[in-house]
Amino acid sequence: MSKTIAIIGLGLIGGSMAIALKDFEDCELLGVDVSQPTLRYAVEQGIVHRATDDPRAALEQADLIFLCMHPQGIISFLREHRDHFRPGSMVTDVCGVKGAILRAAECLPPEVSFLGGHPMAGTEFSGIQNAIPDMFRGAHYILTPNGQSSPEHIALMERIARHIGCADVVKTTPERHDAIIAYTSQMMHIIAVAVCDDQSLFEYQGFEGDSFRGCTRVAALDVPLWTQLFTLNGPALCAALEHLEDNLRAYRQAIQSGDRDTLVEKLAWSSARKRKMNRLEQESGAVGRQK
Amino acid sequence: MSKTIAIIGLGLIGGSMAIALKDFEDCELLGVDVSQPTLRYAVEQGIVHRATDDPRAALEQADLIFLCMHPQGIISFLREHRDHFRPGSMVTDVCGVKGAILRAAECLPPEVSFLGGHPMAGTEFSGIQNAIPDMFRGAHYILTPNGQSSPEHIALMERIARHIGCADVVKTTPERHDAIIAYTSQMMHIIAVAVCDDQSLFEYQGFEGDSFRGCTRVAALDVPLWTQLFTLNGPALCAALEHLEDNLRAYRQAIQSGDRDTLVEKLAWSSARKRKMNRLEQESGAVGRQK
Repeated sequence: MSKTIAIIGLGLIGGSMAIALKDFEDCELLGVDVSQPTLRYAVEQGIVHRATDDPRAALEQADLIFLCMHPQGIISFLREHRDHFRPGSMVTDVCGVKGAILRAAECLPPEVSFLGGHPMAGTEFSGIQNAIPDMFRGAHYILTPNGQSSPEHIALMERIARHIGCADVVKTTPERHDAIIAYTSQMMHIIAVAVCDDQSLFEYQGFEGDSFRGCTRVAALDVPLWTQLFTLNGPALCAALEHLEDNLRAYRQAIQSGDRDTLVEKLAWSSARKRKMNRLEQESGAVGRQK
Repeated sequence: MSKTIAIIGLGLIGGSMAIALKDFEDCELLGVDVSQPTLRYAVEQGIVHRATDDPRAALEQADLIFLCMHPQGIISFLREHRDHFRPGSMVTDVCGVKGAILRAAECLPPEVSFLGGHPMAGTEFSGIQNAIPDMFRGAHYILTPNGQSSPEHIALMERIARHIGCADVVKTTPERHDAIIAYTSQMMHIIAVAVCDDQSLFEYQGFEGDSFRGCTRVAALDVPLWTQLFTLNGPALCAALEHLEDNLRAYRQAIQSGDRDTLVEKLAWSSARKRKMNRLEQESGAVGRQK
């Protein structure tokens, strides 16, 4: 029997998820958004089979619900619609923080399965117009299963991750997810914006290389989204930033003091770690266009 | 009349320059290196027309000399071979710092033209085996002409920059180059290694996205090369790092204090600057695989 998958929030990630889910197990894709132009675009472009601005009508039909709004939008939606999910239905999300989402999902009735998810993909753009079919290719799909998650739901998400091209499925706890993501994703975004705060930024035009582009690409971020992500994971992010500040200062002091031996030693140590990480990543098969 | 171009130092950049110069104005390419396997590889792969480990023999024949060694190697070479360049010959380099190189080049006799250069290209790899034909595609080619540089030499370098696919030629002083490069290139490398210093780095495997990959790619750096670059530009680099530390701290404090309005305002300001920089860069046509 084919399933109905409702995608709530047809932005960059929701839209890309819909495109990537095309032909998944003969499912019907039902798009939900508050914006009429977005719904029209999604249907006209064949991104979803059907579209509606009525979440209750969608929840009545959906077997699997993808919550693809901004974090606070997901939290509000869970609270507002806790009694509108069909018994036996499966709910997942794509949010970049997991602790706050999992706490909000506790309000769901026991006959609804919730499985937190974070496909580690994204670009610095937003909106369905920027959705792309290979958004998730090579990405890690992180899941945070708990007592609320049915085995059927977990198996379904693993098939979905494979279908949309992810490199692997990584299972962890919400707490561990948030602690690590603070470092590997959120801190990268803070570095990018902090670099762009330099007063002479525009005088640097003509002197940018790929290291500058690679580091600052994500500075052109979606402000409401990242404000929510940073705020919902504040303590872990601030701890990560303090470590980075210490590590930067240690490099600066080695250069400032003219202590060449320490500088060589530090560079050799750090660069060897990066090369080791590259090897581990290559072995895992993960490569991506990822957040 | 066709020219002989000698490329001294057939590493990643020298090798890529030789490949990119293929068919440039019917020139003959003469490769010079201390390593016999490198010279053999360069000839066998057709990267240069001829190869030698004797720099004096090369300098006797060369009309244009590209110095593609590490910074200290270039400085020593200029001092050692100051009297071996042919009168009327043109000498350039590809080094990522310019002040120290230009000071060393002052030892050249007046009948030799010196023009400092920095094609802003590179990868995190090294050696001629990693040389690639499109290394310079879309890159900025920075030149630091001064009284030592002949107009003919400047015109030749502009034709070369076009031939190897650079987006543009940017002319500046060595001092301005070094001050800006400290920020747009060297600091990016310090950020990358500092991020990789985190004690839990390897536990993050499975949680990397493109922002992490983009920021840390260059951490797998060539230690002797970057030790020299950082050391030769220490004061400018340390000043850039201090600014970054301040900017990071300001972000951390906004998050730590729960001051959401300040966070939103800061993110809106920084991300708008990055979007503006993207527009400027798009207008300039520069895109790259660049350092």
